[in-house]
Amino acid sequence: MKSSSITLGICQLAVTPDKALNIRNAERMLKAAAKEKCQVAILPEMFNCSYEVELFSRYAESYPDGDTFTMLSQTAAQERMVVVGGSMPERDEWGNLYNTSFIFDEQGGLLGRHRKIHLFDVEIAGGTVFKESSILSAGQDVTVIKAAGLTLGIGICYDIRFPELSRLMVLAGAKLLIFPGVFGMSTGPAHWELLMRSRAVDNQVFVAGVAPANFPEASYQVYGHSMVVDPWGRIVSVADDKEKLLIVEIDLEILNKVRRELPLLQHRRTDVYELRQKI
Amino acid sequence: MKSSSITLGICQLAVTPDKALNIRNAERMLKAAAKEKCQVAILPEMFNCSYEVELFSRYAESYPDGDTFTMLSQTAAQERMVVVGGSMPERDEWGNLYNTSFIFDEQGGLLGRHRKIHLFDVEIAGGTVFKESSILSAGQDVTVIKAAGLTLGIGICYDIRFPELSRLMVLAGAKLLIFPGVFGMSTGPAHWELLMRSRAVDNQVFVAGVAPANFPEASYQVYGHSMVVDPWGRIVSVADDKEKLLIVEIDLEILNKVRRELPLLQHRRTDVYELRQKI
Repeated sequence: MKSSSITLGICQLAVTPDKALNIRNAERMLKAAAKEKCQVAILPEMFNCSYEVELFSRYAESYPDGDTFTMLSQTAAQERMVVVGGSMPERDEWGNLYNTSFIFDEQGGLLGRHRKIHLFDVEIAGGTVFKESSILSAGQDVTVIKAAGLTLGIGICYDIRFPELSRLMVLAGAKLLIFPGVFGMSTGPAHWELLMRSRAVDNQVFVAGVAPANFPEASYQVYGHSMVVDPWGRIVSVADDKEKLLIVEIDLEILNKVRRELPLLQHRRTDVYELRQKI
Repeated sequence: MKSSSITLGICQLAVTPDKALNIRNAERMLKAAAKEKCQVAILPEMFNCSYEVELFSRYAESYPDGDTFTMLSQTAAQERMVVVGGSMPERDEWGNLYNTSFIFDEQGGLLGRHRKIHLFDVEIAGGTVFKESSILSAGQDVTVIKAAGLTLGIGICYDIRFPELSRLMVLAGAKLLIFPGVFGMSTGPAHWELLMRSRAVDNQVFVAGVAPANFPEASYQVYGHSMVVDPWGRIVSVADDKEKLLIVEIDLEILNKVRRELPLLQHRRTDVYELRQKI
């Protein structure tokens, strides 16, 4: 493997309504990723809790206490691998719930967390209906983390729809944007691939979208299609809607080449417009 | 036709090295669009000048003097139709050259102009090589214009690659983004459709990309594929690389429906990030 390369494990898990089973399944797939020499393994959005707003409160944990945190940290340390814990319901000290991604380093230490910034409140005629804000609080932070020799930007699902967030993560140095996400059968076929490829091309970065596998008995049918896209917008690897571990090597030399040939980020007209983080 | 609808004429012209011939061909296609009851007709980037940096200076005009301006204004007035003059080389009073789109109203009056903001300086190995900034000056303004009962945002070609610009046009009220553009055979197949669809989906607007037809004798082989995309990212109409007039009815009720169901623009976290125009 080239020194400019890094191997990702994209864990498209089937998420069930059984929390303990979900944790065991996630551990199993993380260990399988480690066996394939992944340096970073990524779980899907709400990997310990099927995507039902009513379950979020029951399955939530408060860091650092809880079976999910324990498994993530121990597995990262045992396998000496960065673990991006997709997302899970988190309860803070005041009782607020968040949709949060916890990221652990190769020693099992917490590298950081991303609380979903944009909550998904939609009502598509004949399709997806959700109102996350009825139960969840929104994060306030743009999350960029150094891990495994790489700078990662983390957003969750609906966060990908806002180009401002991806741009800010990239301007802060992210070379790989990670979006655990659960798109359904209205927006998935229409927009999932488009959004992943477009954030990659506009920002000349790698993008990993990590979805759960579809679980036919669930009330919310999910699109799956976890994928990794390169900085030229090419799909490097993609799953269907079944459970699948994608092992994907990404080569930062591709990112450097794209940026040399088409220096988009240098061509931004920062004298005409300004994008800034307020908090 | 519904009162919420408007008919666009997308003029995928073959642009030759002969300026006078290009003007005649553009006039002919604009008149054909008028015959099809288009309310807005749009020409491609550099419709009077094949896309060769060396020709820009020779073919440039200074508003309001020149055969190109005269044709655009007269045709708009005769046909009582808004004409978006794709783009053409413009010389200002100090001798600076711009890649500029001039927009005329149904009385032939100048509604506004957009000078390309982002200049295309690239060097793709084995592919496209350009250095526009060696001869062109860059525009400074975000261009949003009311015309034909609609608010239009105008960018030119490379301008589409910068999500900040499209977002600013939409925040200023644009419902249809128009991008006259000449993509080549490296970036065209890779990115043209992706960029059009992604600006449409992120901003929940219609997007029209207007390219010249390919001209086999030209030094720069162009991709064509003029298209109109709706606010859900669906391609409403698309050409191949041959000369073609697309007649496309767009219905603003679709835009309103998409924004009602998935209120992206309301969900922007303007407390976390801020995008603003500086000039």
